[in-house]
Amino acid sequence: MMVTLGRQAKSAARFMRAASGIAKANALHAMADGLLAQRETLQAENTRDLEAAAQRGLEPALLERLKLSDKALDTMAIGLRQIAAMPDPIGSLSETTQRPNGMRVARMRMPLGVVGIIYESRPNVTIDAAALCLKTGNATILRGGSEAFHSNRALGAVIQSSLESAGLPAHAVQVVGTTDRSAVGEMITLTDYIDVIVPRGGKSLIARLAADAKVPLIKHLDGNCHLYVDARADLRKAHDIAINAKTYRYGICGAMETLLVHTSIAADFLPRLGRQFTEMGVELRACSRSLAWLPDAHLATDEDWATEYLAPILAVRSVDSIDEAMDHIARYSSEHTESIITEDLSAATRFQREVDSSSVYVNLPTCFADGFEYGLGAEIGISTNRLHARGPVGLEGLTIQKWVLTGDGQLRV
Amino acid sequence: MMVTLGRQAKSAARFMRAASGIAKANALHAMADGLLAQRETLQAENTRDLEAAAQRGLEPALLERLKLSDKALDTMAIGLRQIAAMPDPIGSLSETTQRPNGMRVARMRMPLGVVGIIYESRPNVTIDAAALCLKTGNATILRGGSEAFHSNRALGAVIQSSLESAGLPAHAVQVVGTTDRSAVGEMITLTDYIDVIVPRGGKSLIARLAADAKVPLIKHLDGNCHLYVDARADLRKAHDIAINAKTYRYGICGAMETLLVHTSIAADFLPRLGRQFTEMGVELRACSRSLAWLPDAHLATDEDWATEYLAPILAVRSVDSIDEAMDHIARYSSEHTESIITEDLSAATRFQREVDSSSVYVNLPTCFADGFEYGLGAEIGISTNRLHARGPVGLEGLTIQKWVLTGDGQLRV
Repeated sequence: MMVTLGRQAKSAARFMRAASGIAKANALHAMADGLLAQRETLQAENTRDLEAAAQRGLEPALLERLKLSDKALDTMAIGLRQIAAMPDPIGSLSETTQRPNGMRVARMRMPLGVVGIIYESRPNVTIDAAALCLKTGNATILRGGSEAFHSNRALGAVIQSSLESAGLPAHAVQVVGTTDRSAVGEMITLTDYIDVIVPRGGKSLIARLAADAKVPLIKHLDGNCHLYVDARADLRKAHDIAINAKTYRYGICGAMETLLVHTSIAADFLPRLGRQFTEMGVELRACSRSLAWLPDAHLATDEDWATEYLAPILAVRSVDSIDEAMDHIARYSSEHTESIITEDLSAATRFQREVDSSSVYVNLPTCFADGFEYGLGAEIGISTNRLHARGPVGLEGLTIQKWVLTGDGQLRV
Repeated sequence: MMVTLGRQAKSAARFMRAASGIAKANALHAMADGLLAQRETLQAENTRDLEAAAQRGLEPALLERLKLSDKALDTMAIGLRQIAAMPDPIGSLSETTQRPNGMRVARMRMPLGVVGIIYESRPNVTIDAAALCLKTGNATILRGGSEAFHSNRALGAVIQSSLESAGLPAHAVQVVGTTDRSAVGEMITLTDYIDVIVPRGGKSLIARLAADAKVPLIKHLDGNCHLYVDARADLRKAHDIAINAKTYRYGICGAMETLLVHTSIAADFLPRLGRQFTEMGVELRACSRSLAWLPDAHLATDEDWATEYLAPILAVRSVDSIDEAMDHIARYSSEHTESIITEDLSAATRFQREVDSSSVYVNLPTCFADGFEYGLGAEIGISTNRLHARGPVGLEGLTIQKWVLTGDGQLRV
């Protein structure tokens, strides 16, 4: 079954590569119109998923994420029109140079080809991912979670009729029409038809996919993010940044999980910060030295340094130097997002250059890790890969540059 | 054994990430000096390889490529000094923007980490690859062919002493000290320590590595390159370009392997071209229609369209339109390099946009497929991948951009 989807996607991808920006924008607007016009049908299908999920005892927070409320549909439609309005990246030329023999060398931005998306419950990913891949001229195969099966199928129908209304092939976006788990296993090995897969979900899902995938993945496993408060930090800024980094939202991959504090300022900085975290219900797990300044904390174990809590828990460690902080980060970080709080230019420069994470901040909370906050206008995911895309991935990460050379009969000598 | 090399490389990579451009340039100059100062030792070791190869009956052309002649060593030294003189790409910032809240977002170019190179007989690759990886701040593990074992070991010694003389870790460049074939199998699965592998060699080697690799490869399998002579071609230019594309060198991956000719100009174009190819000893294999204009040609089979000859053999097919030419290319091309010969702007534009190869030319022979010809100054290989790097890969392909954000206490709201 997946081979059929793959073959159809590859054929659609060839058409999409040459599709005009106008046709793609028209399809995106048609999708937005369709979401609003088909609101009742979509919500009826969504209700089937919600009822089944409620019967299986899904948590209220997850039910909320699954729900295609009026507001959720409106938000999706607005997002689609925003993506429609963005410039078409495909076909743009850059780095044009002229060689001594007169031939012109340039790079042209092109789609990747066929993009697979594997994700869990949220049906808004169906629309977001389809829109980003469509904008970049890719064909897409979407494999959502089984809890959202009916919702995704109904959204897929809206997407495909919108493509056709804009003169684009319906197979440019295909929703996998089965909840069979083997479909995922097939997808990640379908190298003949799928060029890249963006998996979105928990660490264990991604790790399992990464172990078996033959198709390249644009992915991150987890976000064990660090905030280092340097000896030369402005302690008022540091306090507010630390609170924001942890409590903006506990469940996001950019949430701070370990706070590193230079010992020289720990006595001034930690007691008040610790009290506020305790008041906000954040459990503290501290190294033996930091315990002296954090009376409410428990003693941290080695496992705490390696843990992405995604919860109101924070590990705290005091360090004697920026080098010790960077050593700790090199050892425990998942290379997602780290930040230094300092007024010292040399420390800031060293930290940004030497810390080997996909995003490295100065005087900012780690929770800014998000493509929209970076100004990308859209985000398909966050990557801790070392090839192709590192950090938040927007439209550019769904494209690649080929070389175009133009001459007038020059020969190689 | 490979795990030890991997661990040492990873440790060196952390140091190299922060190494100054001056230290890296010093190491490259020391390597150039060392090649010249150690000329006798290097040639003595090389002679051991040459004698063994001659005993095993290696072809004269391959013996020539294996030889560390005075000229070969001089050329390597010049290449090293050229790479030393190029700007250091690492740490450079680009695309800096300021967000509405005042924080600055930028991308900083960084090394990939640990790069593995797997290659065959030519010992100059040892120096070239080491130099490019060093310049880009990567640690490198070099696994050359067994025929060049003693040469590569001696070159590795020069490289490592040069690194140390510049204050860089010797393990930043390691030559695998065994001819054991299992070393390659270990390398391509060593995901904990090696970030990317660039394999260089024949199609069968690369295909075998790709099938088993867990580490990402920057690679191309073969170069089944097409030249399409359009209805609106300047036939004099087309003639010279076709001859150059095939005969500049038969054995390079950019050599034209199939010539596609629009039927409307075939009677004017093919007979004279065919005669010249025949005079130059190029065997022609033509489609049934083209045979009428190419009396010396044999009838081509379907296999000919799919074959990279790397030899004085050329497949010729006539087509009725640019669409038929692009269909043929979509079906048979290895996505390496294709070219259209035309004076028609619309045909040129469509071809460059729609042909999905890593390099697409107008009015140029396919044999320009080379990083030096593109102005990259250096080339680690050519990629037909769809992620990270597509086409000739220079220094940039050995790097990745991370995100660096700088603020002054902005919080996420």
